[in-house]
Amino acid sequence: MTDMTTDTAGMAAMMSWPQGPGEGQEAQEILAAARACVDPELRGAIDSLPGSLRRVARYHFGWEHADGTPAAGNAGKAIRPALVLAAVRALGGEHATAVRAAAAVELIHNFTLLHDDVMDRDTTRRHRPTAWTVFGDADAILVGDAMQALGMRLLAEDPHPGAPAASARLARCVIELCAGQQADCAMERRGPAEVTLDECLAMAEAKTGALLGCACALGAVYAGGAPEEVDALDGFGREAGLAFQLIDDVIGIWGDPGRTGKAAGADLAARKKSLPVVAALASGTPDAVDLAELYGGPAMSEAELERAARLVEQAGGRDWAQVHAADRMSRAIGQLARAVPDPEAAGGLLALAEFVTRRTH
Amino acid sequence: MTDMTTDTAGMAAMMSWPQGPGEGQEAQEILAAARACVDPELRGAIDSLPGSLRRVARYHFGWEHADGTPAAGNAGKAIRPALVLAAVRALGGEHATAVRAAAAVELIHNFTLLHDDVMDRDTTRRHRPTAWTVFGDADAILVGDAMQALGMRLLAEDPHPGAPAASARLARCVIELCAGQQADCAMERRGPAEVTLDECLAMAEAKTGALLGCACALGAVYAGGAPEEVDALDGFGREAGLAFQLIDDVIGIWGDPGRTGKAAGADLAARKKSLPVVAALASGTPDAVDLAELYGGPAMSEAELERAARLVEQAGGRDWAQVHAADRMSRAIGQLARAVPDPEAAGGLLALAEFVTRRTH
Repeated sequence: MTDMTTDTAGMAAMMSWPQGPGEGQEAQEILAAARACVDPELRGAIDSLPGSLRRVARYHFGWEHADGTPAAGNAGKAIRPALVLAAVRALGGEHATAVRAAAAVELIHNFTLLHDDVMDRDTTRRHRPTAWTVFGDADAILVGDAMQALGMRLLAEDPHPGAPAASARLARCVIELCAGQQADCAMERRGPAEVTLDECLAMAEAKTGALLGCACALGAVYAGGAPEEVDALDGFGREAGLAFQLIDDVIGIWGDPGRTGKAAGADLAARKKSLPVVAALASGTPDAVDLAELYGGPAMSEAELERAARLVEQAGGRDWAQVHAADRMSRAIGQLARAVPDPEAAGGLLALAEFVTRRTH
Repeated sequence: MTDMTTDTAGMAAMMSWPQGPGEGQEAQEILAAARACVDPELRGAIDSLPGSLRRVARYHFGWEHADGTPAAGNAGKAIRPALVLAAVRALGGEHATAVRAAAAVELIHNFTLLHDDVMDRDTTRRHRPTAWTVFGDADAILVGDAMQALGMRLLAEDPHPGAPAASARLARCVIELCAGQQADCAMERRGPAEVTLDECLAMAEAKTGALLGCACALGAVYAGGAPEEVDALDGFGREAGLAFQLIDDVIGIWGDPGRTGKAAGADLAARKKSLPVVAALASGTPDAVDLAELYGGPAMSEAELERAARLVEQAGGRDWAQVHAADRMSRAIGQLARAVPDPEAAGGLLALAEFVTRRTH
């Protein structure tokens, strides 16, 4: 993590983008402003759902408790809506025109969360029981289905001239998200040695990169950007998304120093075929053989989890992930510079990308 | 069933629409022509899916066996695409312009089938094992998700001037379908006496009527119809859909005389809260009390199933369903006449509606 932050900061400094101690704070402010902007649109959209679907959706967003009473709400950081609005601004557009598109992207993201939780049998989301554990599989599936349709409906009803192109892009993105989740599920069923690093990277790009890229691309479409600007911003979001996933996977093994995030070893205990693990297994080293044995054996003890983390590190998995994350972030910055040559204009998008990859939150 | 056919035929005759022994054949020809038209578009759309999603989708449509070898294929009767194209023609449009929209509606229909089968744990669809039984829940959910997105993508990528309005309508329809399926699942969990007839009718309208209405409305939109024509054709499809559901429910209890369809008593054995049953239970007769007891008790024997069917009939459930189906069909014809006053032009849509409600196939 520390290396990664330094590398990225170094890259940005080299490319003479503004960089400083206020960086994380800038992203926090952008996110808060995006939430304030998009929240009414999002709540309005959810409130338009038929009663029983609405109830599950409001629970999922943290606006209500399971019994329907109001809750303080923790609907997530709204990184994707913030990327939509920041991309509009980066290309000189008026961000207010894209609030509906930003809400549509957030609805699509949340539809995938609802369904992924059903498929992965995850029981906790944003520190609360997942919707399927409270309302059952059928309700979680149906509300996810309705949320996808609601996201598409917002764009279809939007009179903005960019809306049809945005709809097509978002629909294509959903198909990619589904393929990514399917690849993830299929990998879970295979032995650790049967998964290649390329497959793993392709899965992460489809599952995580695609929607971050689409969010940026939609902002570019709404700003009236040229096709090559739209594609470059899509690439920016995708590459930043992969950098984020790589760092998230590092944190899943070694923890987030000084942060109250994921516990160290959590991904190893779950035998997740995360990117550093697959890189280590593919290293052809004696450590890889030992690691494969631990991953293929019975549940690991505390000592074995520590040993597994050590083996991933010794086999080069940690270094590979950090170097590769820096490389992806560098590519992201390259794509951003292609679409938005003015560092001042690109500042918001860069701050968001560094925020998600540094996880200084 | 026989009464129903006579009533409808009588109504149509009264309203001087063409009617005769060739009616069922006309619908068969319309359906075959629609399938020939839409099939290449549908296959092309499915083939654009990423590999592993494509495989499940091709299995679901009956184009492939589970092992990926080609199958003869039974992708269903394609009533919804046929309604789209017939509605275009009824309003004087060129049906070739709406083939993509027709495929989009069929994709949406099939997305709901994939998910409904997961939720209802149905193991057979079109005489083959359902997708979730072959590929697992996760794949069936994901392919359904992707199929919804694919349907929306076809419309979003369609340069036809009616496409944006059609997208919005189709997205709203998906939300209604989800609400209908949710109501159905919720009713299944309640006692037979706790379900009202109004709830049951509203559920059937959302689950069955909405997409048939939307198919007709999309055809009207693609033909450049006025808003009141679009709404009237939506109403036509909805009412015909409810008539269809009522007759399907009658067949689910008393069977389809002379046809190799559902076995008599199937819905009773499954304790389905179908419309004739709920009407019987709501009748306030002594037979209703006996029926409620049978429905609340242990699994029914052959003799008890026959008794239950007799009780539904004695409590007036069968007559109510047949009269109500005729009433819905009459309303459907009224809506059709409002949008398409020329009986010649309306012939195709009428033939399809009578085909689905008579089930002479």
